[in-house]
Amino acid sequence: MAKNTPQNKEYTPPMAKPKKRKAKPMPKADAPAKAETQKPKRKYYNNYKKKKKPQPKITSKLHIASLGGLHEIGKNMTMIEYEDDIIIIDCGIAFPDEDMLGIDLVTPDITYLEKNKDKIRAILLTHGHEDHIGSLPYVLRTINPDIYGTKLTVGIVERKLSEHRLPEKPKLHSVTAGDTVKVGKLTAEFIRVNHSIADACAIAIRTPLGTLLHTGDFKLDTTPIDGKMMDITRLGEIGNEGVLLLMCESTNAERPGFTPSERKVGRSLADIFLKNDDKRIVIATFSSNVHRVQQIISLSAEHGRKVAVLGRSMVNIIEAASELGYMDVPEGTLIDIKEVNRYPENKVTLVTTGSQGEPMSALYRLAFGAHDRITLGQKDLVVISATAIPGNEKAVSKIINAFIASNVSIMNDPETDVHVSGHACREELKLMHALTKPKYFMPVHGELRHLDAHRHLALEMGMDDANIFVSDIGKVLEIDSKGARFNGTVPAGKVLIDGIGVGDVGSIVLRDRKHLSQDGLIVVVAAIDQTDGYIVSGPDIISRGFVYVRESEELIDAMKQVSLDAIEKCMSHGHNDWVEIKNAVRDNLAKFIYQKTHRKPMILPVIMNI
Amino acid sequence: MAKNTPQNKEYTPPMAKPKKRKAKPMPKADAPAKAETQKPKRKYYNNYKKKKKPQPKITSKLHIASLGGLHEIGKNMTMIEYEDDIIIIDCGIAFPDEDMLGIDLVTPDITYLEKNKDKIRAILLTHGHEDHIGSLPYVLRTINPDIYGTKLTVGIVERKLSEHRLPEKPKLHSVTAGDTVKVGKLTAEFIRVNHSIADACAIAIRTPLGTLLHTGDFKLDTTPIDGKMMDITRLGEIGNEGVLLLMCESTNAERPGFTPSERKVGRSLADIFLKNDDKRIVIATFSSNVHRVQQIISLSAEHGRKVAVLGRSMVNIIEAASELGYMDVPEGTLIDIKEVNRYPENKVTLVTTGSQGEPMSALYRLAFGAHDRITLGQKDLVVISATAIPGNEKAVSKIINAFIASNVSIMNDPETDVHVSGHACREELKLMHALTKPKYFMPVHGELRHLDAHRHLALEMGMDDANIFVSDIGKVLEIDSKGARFNGTVPAGKVLIDGIGVGDVGSIVLRDRKHLSQDGLIVVVAAIDQTDGYIVSGPDIISRGFVYVRESEELIDAMKQVSLDAIEKCMSHGHNDWVEIKNAVRDNLAKFIYQKTHRKPMILPVIMNI
Repeated sequence: MAKNTPQNKEYTPPMAKPKKRKAKPMPKADAPAKAETQKPKRKYYNNYKKKKKPQPKITSKLHIASLGGLHEIGKNMTMIEYEDDIIIIDCGIAFPDEDMLGIDLVTPDITYLEKNKDKIRAILLTHGHEDHIGSLPYVLRTINPDIYGTKLTVGIVERKLSEHRLPEKPKLHSVTAGDTVKVGKLTAEFIRVNHSIADACAIAIRTPLGTLLHTGDFKLDTTPIDGKMMDITRLGEIGNEGVLLLMCESTNAERPGFTPSERKVGRSLADIFLKNDDKRIVIATFSSNVHRVQQIISLSAEHGRKVAVLGRSMVNIIEAASELGYMDVPEGTLIDIKEVNRYPENKVTLVTTGSQGEPMSALYRLAFGAHDRITLGQKDLVVISATAIPGNEKAVSKIINAFIASNVSIMNDPETDVHVSGHACREELKLMHALTKPKYFMPVHGELRHLDAHRHLALEMGMDDANIFVSDIGKVLEIDSKGARFNGTVPAGKVLIDGIGVGDVGSIVLRDRKHLSQDGLIVVVAAIDQTDGYIVSGPDIISRGFVYVRESEELIDAMKQVSLDAIEKCMSHGHNDWVEIKNAVRDNLAKFIYQKTHRKPMILPVIMNI
Repeated sequence: MAKNTPQNKEYTPPMAKPKKRKAKPMPKADAPAKAETQKPKRKYYNNYKKKKKPQPKITSKLHIASLGGLHEIGKNMTMIEYEDDIIIIDCGIAFPDEDMLGIDLVTPDITYLEKNKDKIRAILLTHGHEDHIGSLPYVLRTINPDIYGTKLTVGIVERKLSEHRLPEKPKLHSVTAGDTVKVGKLTAEFIRVNHSIADACAIAIRTPLGTLLHTGDFKLDTTPIDGKMMDITRLGEIGNEGVLLLMCESTNAERPGFTPSERKVGRSLADIFLKNDDKRIVIATFSSNVHRVQQIISLSAEHGRKVAVLGRSMVNIIEAASELGYMDVPEGTLIDIKEVNRYPENKVTLVTTGSQGEPMSALYRLAFGAHDRITLGQKDLVVISATAIPGNEKAVSKIINAFIASNVSIMNDPETDVHVSGHACREELKLMHALTKPKYFMPVHGELRHLDAHRHLALEMGMDDANIFVSDIGKVLEIDSKGARFNGTVPAGKVLIDGIGVGDVGSIVLRDRKHLSQDGLIVVVAAIDQTDGYIVSGPDIISRGFVYVRESEELIDAMKQVSLDAIEKCMSHGHNDWVEIKNAVRDNLAKFIYQKTHRKPMILPVIMNI
């Protein structure tokens, strides 16, 4: 791993330097040119170093920092700065950890971007998953650069943003895989990859110092549902031209082999449809997996089944994908959920969200008999076409148990091969490294264990450890003509979204929620006359989440007595000060309660001076 | 699945019937006889039905109910009642679900046992795991029957109980696998099985109606570390004699094949020791896995390493196992943790608890540099010789990331084959069914998905669905000479242990904890003069876990105003009643807060009348 400069040094953005060489003319952003027209007329070389032609020395530096996606799963966001241009790749959310009580979403800290608003040339989106686009509604409250993505990605973003009130109209631009767009002095080329959502891309950023390649999320699918394989030819060409820095995803860097094709799921599903022609089939999967849904719709049409879609996000994505031509839905196949009960069970397929066991998702409601239109029973087969993401296993198990209790048949992965990953396993990652032959490498997208496994993979591929940069959010990688190194940091962290509040819940609030959740709360209320030193009213005890009060009268009475003693003792010593009385009540009561129950509820003394 | 009688019918225990036939003389409990001496001199038959000799009709009924371990993982406890004898098999705890905030442990509801104390003849323990013995300290507060278990099991129980104050001295009795003990009119034979703890047994209960076989937890290990294979011969003999009811564990009923031998882990570990002779090796595993620890100690001795043990439960179990002769520790191999730093890193092995990522376990403290004696670095290799139990994956991942961040090498399953399950997979379950050929079958130990998978396995083995009883806790299976059926229920449920409180935390308390954990708390305090109808003091707002107060002054001020308006409006209408004012404050404030923040904190209005 490359040596790390001290982290406490704040990174200062470079001043715009006078241009050392003229940028080549590039197509305008609103008229993206085909990749072919961009292809530089250069010979191919097999090694980056050999390839360097004598050229004027570039004194400007590239600065690359991720605001999310390193040492964590989700909220992917990478920032590339060169002179007075900033490009952002992706803008995702993360889901809260277990200890973030009450938090809905986590977004990246964009302080640095807000301070350097004028430099931001574009947000480039690799694909339409929440962990790559989900923060846009929050980020666009304070910055509003041009946003580029493929048609489906932009379609999904448009629908998402329409649900939020934003200060300015977002500037969305669709591109097609293969397109290059000019962003400031730099250019960005979108290169098709395969993933568990259609129309996903890697992005190559051309800079005067060399090409930066960000893979986004990817896998290699040699038999993709839409016939569009990852453009490994183009990746190889870019590799031959020379890649200065590869930023490659690391999600499956611990997993050996290749990720199977999406088509494998199709074969399993075909088998299930064939063997269950007496049953209604309910398939739960990720709403964004357009190709999975396409396979389900095609199979249903083949078997003369109507398809109804459950779950708002599923309906949204299917609408977007159909409108934009990413899905082929045979006329009359899709029916409204209201019409389902007009068909025989075995002539209907339901596609639904909730494959992660999310409470109140459509699948959850079906499992617990709480769906307002559909009740499942022994004529139904539920297929969970997804794998439980770590942390969700118990929630999924709950749903499976509930279905079994209602005599619903159930099938899930791995037993029935009804899911494949969307991420490259080790052999595909090796292919990416072999094709792109980067000079420097920064593993992205993953916890440290994944980034480190990816680093070991690069070492196995013969890379020099000094050229591998396992980074962290906010850490700035600086590249210039002399080399690459970590140099300082920009602000980075987790901005917590709770309700419509952004960032107003921090560690103190979470610590209190945690405390309250463990042993509950006790409020001690008393009114005192500070001047004359006597208790006007109280003390009374209010508790929540502590013990079942009606069965603990004795304990509560004893607690009152302890509080009373504490107040009286204070006042008899002439300590009529609020703070002193409060502390005395809190300390004495805490001690008493711990002794009696071994619990530590939050104690709030409310002492009013009348 | 056998038909289910209505659940709402309360089960009434049978009156003791006059004896219809004389019980055979049985050895005394304190002088257990070898199984061999118990072996009835009967011919072997291949089918239960054929086997029935003409015999006097038995009019008494057997009642079997589980108080835990069905539709859940853990707190295994099964109750068998015949006339005026009750036998209990196991007495375990479960760990709290995510929604049981602040709860430490879950124990079974033993109301029925407490009411029928005088009938209880014995608690029989299959093995020394927490989910089979952990409730003893709580159950023995109100009942105190004889407790039987193998030597290691009893040794572990003794150490556990010594940490609790109990009203009476527990009556512990050690047996050896093969022994039969007399319990009331019934007898219980302990039959050796393999499991992830030494000295585990299945238990056969002989009743006048036939033999009940409870497998406990088991696997088949043909190459066990202690050379003692599951006694399939004896199981087969009992099967040939005739098994009326098989209660068989279901943990791995969804997993195909056979569970590998514990020796496989030994081979992987041997390889790791060989290849890492330059490193200190730290191995985390379950403290109760005596054979795993034995293999680690043997390998360490072979490689000239000293072994130090970390974690209280690990120290306890190794002490118990060594004292009782279950471990073979070469002289001078074990060293105290204080001595570790006196040896070169590569001459030390550390064995530690914390393989599930438990906060504040020894492994956790090592990972986060919080251990007071040992700091790990690049000369260390950590091996996690365990699989994360569903729900613990994230905690384990956190620890792995922390070790990588400190340059500690890390190995874990499945990549390195350093763990095997302790539970029978499908082929071993089939073996159990084939050997015991039960008339009736009740799958035990598992969520419904596991019980149902086990039911399907029994169906595949040719069993009649009417003879399979997928039960639930509290549900009573009644067996008499006419057949078997569900009949009524006994009280059953989860008793939550929080601190030293048993059962004083129920659904209301948990609901409040949940509410408090999501959006925190707001206390509104005001003193009023009810008689003259004016506000003496306040309203003031105290909040915890809601927003960061210093940055939300405006919101808090507005909340004060809303409260003030609500109180004044009430009083101006002459509604000086506490309840009305409280409700008005709560409702108005809740509405205002939701509108401003989309949050729903708990609101506690405290209105004092002066």
